[in-house]
Amino acid sequence: MNRFETIAKNLAEQIRAGHIPVGTTLPSLRQIIAQYGVSQSTVLRAYYLLEKWGLVRAEERAGYFVAPGAAVDEIALTEETEAPKKVDISDLVFSVLESTRHPDIVPLGSAFPSPALFPSARLLKSLVAGTRSLTPLSTVEDLPGSDHLRQQIRRRYVGTGFAVAPEEIIVTNGALEALNLCLMAVTRPGDVVAVESPGFYAALQAIERLDLRAVEIPVDPVSGLDLDALQSALKQHPIRACWFMPNFQNPTGTSLSIEKKRALVEMLREKQIPLIEDDVYQELHFSRDRPLPAKAFDSEGLVMHCSSFSKTLAPGYRIGWATAGRFADKVRRLKLMTTLSACIPAQAGIADYLEHGGYDKHLRSLRLSLQIQLEQMEIALRKWLPSSVKWVRPDGGYILWLQLPQSVKAMELHALASARGISIAPGPMFSARHAFQNCVRLNFGHPWDARFESAIGSLAEILDDPSVHH
Amino acid sequence: MNRFETIAKNLAEQIRAGHIPVGTTLPSLRQIIAQYGVSQSTVLRAYYLLEKWGLVRAEERAGYFVAPGAAVDEIALTEETEAPKKVDISDLVFSVLESTRHPDIVPLGSAFPSPALFPSARLLKSLVAGTRSLTPLSTVEDLPGSDHLRQQIRRRYVGTGFAVAPEEIIVTNGALEALNLCLMAVTRPGDVVAVESPGFYAALQAIERLDLRAVEIPVDPVSGLDLDALQSALKQHPIRACWFMPNFQNPTGTSLSIEKKRALVEMLREKQIPLIEDDVYQELHFSRDRPLPAKAFDSEGLVMHCSSFSKTLAPGYRIGWATAGRFADKVRRLKLMTTLSACIPAQAGIADYLEHGGYDKHLRSLRLSLQIQLEQMEIALRKWLPSSVKWVRPDGGYILWLQLPQSVKAMELHALASARGISIAPGPMFSARHAFQNCVRLNFGHPWDARFESAIGSLAEILDDPSVHH
Repeated sequence: MNRFETIAKNLAEQIRAGHIPVGTTLPSLRQIIAQYGVSQSTVLRAYYLLEKWGLVRAEERAGYFVAPGAAVDEIALTEETEAPKKVDISDLVFSVLESTRHPDIVPLGSAFPSPALFPSARLLKSLVAGTRSLTPLSTVEDLPGSDHLRQQIRRRYVGTGFAVAPEEIIVTNGALEALNLCLMAVTRPGDVVAVESPGFYAALQAIERLDLRAVEIPVDPVSGLDLDALQSALKQHPIRACWFMPNFQNPTGTSLSIEKKRALVEMLREKQIPLIEDDVYQELHFSRDRPLPAKAFDSEGLVMHCSSFSKTLAPGYRIGWATAGRFADKVRRLKLMTTLSACIPAQAGIADYLEHGGYDKHLRSLRLSLQIQLEQMEIALRKWLPSSVKWVRPDGGYILWLQLPQSVKAMELHALASARGISIAPGPMFSARHAFQNCVRLNFGHPWDARFESAIGSLAEILDDPSVHH
Repeated sequence: MNRFETIAKNLAEQIRAGHIPVGTTLPSLRQIIAQYGVSQSTVLRAYYLLEKWGLVRAEERAGYFVAPGAAVDEIALTEETEAPKKVDISDLVFSVLESTRHPDIVPLGSAFPSPALFPSARLLKSLVAGTRSLTPLSTVEDLPGSDHLRQQIRRRYVGTGFAVAPEEIIVTNGALEALNLCLMAVTRPGDVVAVESPGFYAALQAIERLDLRAVEIPVDPVSGLDLDALQSALKQHPIRACWFMPNFQNPTGTSLSIEKKRALVEMLREKQIPLIEDDVYQELHFSRDRPLPAKAFDSEGLVMHCSSFSKTLAPGYRIGWATAGRFADKVRRLKLMTTLSACIPAQAGIADYLEHGGYDKHLRSLRLSLQIQLEQMEIALRKWLPSSVKWVRPDGGYILWLQLPQSVKAMELHALASARGISIAPGPMFSARHAFQNCVRLNFGHPWDARFESAIGSLAEILDDPSVHH
């Protein structure tokens, strides 16, 4: 860890523990320089990091203040990771997802941003143009993925500042299939896989389905994946693969720093362990530049980078990809054996859109909408919810991870909210141990309106109900 | 087995063994009646069956003659099925499929009919209409499959004369995904699965991928799956599921009689063993009526009926389905966990086409084209190939299973044909034991032209090459 990151982490811990209360100023530049023996620029970088994490706010001439909503109780990081275990998560996840599907429900628990934010008319135009351009032989020649689309995907990597080989890219039915195929390519039944905790439930479902075992690596809502815990888990367990989300992690919204991404890739390279990188929110960054994936630091083809157009452009088209490094052949074969190919008109349509449709312009507008919606949700949360409810503002994506008081039972909260027509994603969905009983994930991917405002008010009322508390 | 089927089978064996030579008449009605002690109508039904199998031809006033090309050497049916085994087929299959993908190659080895036979312009119109009719919420409400499409699929079952519940139908990414999900739903690693021999290589690949073991049940090119062999395999091995193709079986093209379908379902019902029924050629029947699937005789939800639009309408759309009986919930969950949903515009487009596009009219024209192409291929085969090459004319689909002299090495034939720009599907692709070394599967799903004629001529030349013989 860099010095400025150490300083930022120490200050973050003091803030979260309440030692530096909301509204007070941070220790002065001079104090920190003296305490750590570092330069002024190092301290400024630490402050900048704290600001990025949403913990402090800079006010001109007055210095850095601790921001409202900053004090998140730390999630217990176990020194020893627990023994790998079989996973049993699907019933819980399906019962929650079922309850959120009705069109009349307020979709705070949804996993998608609102399709109203996407350019569906322009995309249909590309679907028609792309489909018209297909030759009769396209269905045979392009298996398992369209060359045109793979070229377009490759160009976006170049735009981020690094290159991938076209043969590395396998077009899939959404990122979900990409992640599943990558996992299948590098594991056998009984193998141990490291996942994030809290983490995306689909990873847990895949592990359950393939008879694998999971080791959960803690994710801190401020600094992200705990690399020390990962290091110790690598020593303790025969980990065969990792499934992580370094950018805007689901469900915490946190990202790894460049330094931590580099360290993560290096740590896994030493043991030659493949990393399945879920990067579906990569284009939804609020800061100026698209964050690099861990894949950018992968010199040996060990990182399988998975993403899609489902969260940014075309949710129903089911087009994603895996850039699978040295495992590309294996992933391609698994694709051919299980689903053969993604929908060919949909591939042609997205390729045409990427070339002619104005994707970057659309993305700028989408990111702005998401930031405004986040602001609106935070205002409502501050207005309605008790100050004991904490969160860390994410720097991208469309989900917010709320930490409620320890007494709250999120599953009860989910049940009562559901009865009132509001979906939320309760914390236990995101853990093989059904932990995070006092957490919920909220979706701010929908244009804010009175329904959402009123739903937040209802959640506050439900939180007053004694039956949702231990 | 019914009496008329027994009689037909006995006569078929005599024909194949050469005891009743090509061009001679069958024993007279009177002889057979005396020999078996049956009625005249039973014998006529036996003759009809032999005609249907392509073994005899009726000539007015002259009676039944043994047809040219009828004498297929019987594939050895082992009394004892072999021990279940791990499967290792993928390398072989992929190397063959790779070699057939180039647009300049003559696609006799292809698994698809020519897309030129499909109404792509009319379908694009439906794709646009269907996509326009989607609401923004369709992506969420319709998971994992469009209600509209499932209604349309259900209507086609009713058209065949039996009903399925709409909840039974899961829309998938082509039949390949349907088959794979069904297999996953009813097996665990190490389980034994019964497959056909020769049979569809994707079944073998799935078994390999999921760490299952295969028991191969012989398929006779005339009468289809050997139910006696299946019965004895069920006694010998702990079979957990069967994966069979009762209509226009791939690669032999043979179909089970109604009686045998009924007996198959009953045999499996007694032991409560699920049947995964691959019925992708169901709409490509040459006789007047669409053949019933085994699913039609399933009273307990044990049959999972899988099909698609890839072979009849829209190869690139990747839309298929499983009608999965009592396993529907499990299959639906596996779909949600692995690929979430098939392409939603493609689903909407096909649903619109089924409702308004004139599918039945298109199918009538497609079937006619396939029959004409089969006729053209048979003429070329008779013209160019030695009379030692045998086949049974299929009653539907677009593939023909050639049995070459025992000395032929199909893999060598494939290699030499490939070098001359001709793809064929060699027999060993269709068996876990890499058997059927003297067989090849040819595709007659493409409009016949000089390229195909010349390719058949080239195959004849290659057959003269000593290096393709033992």
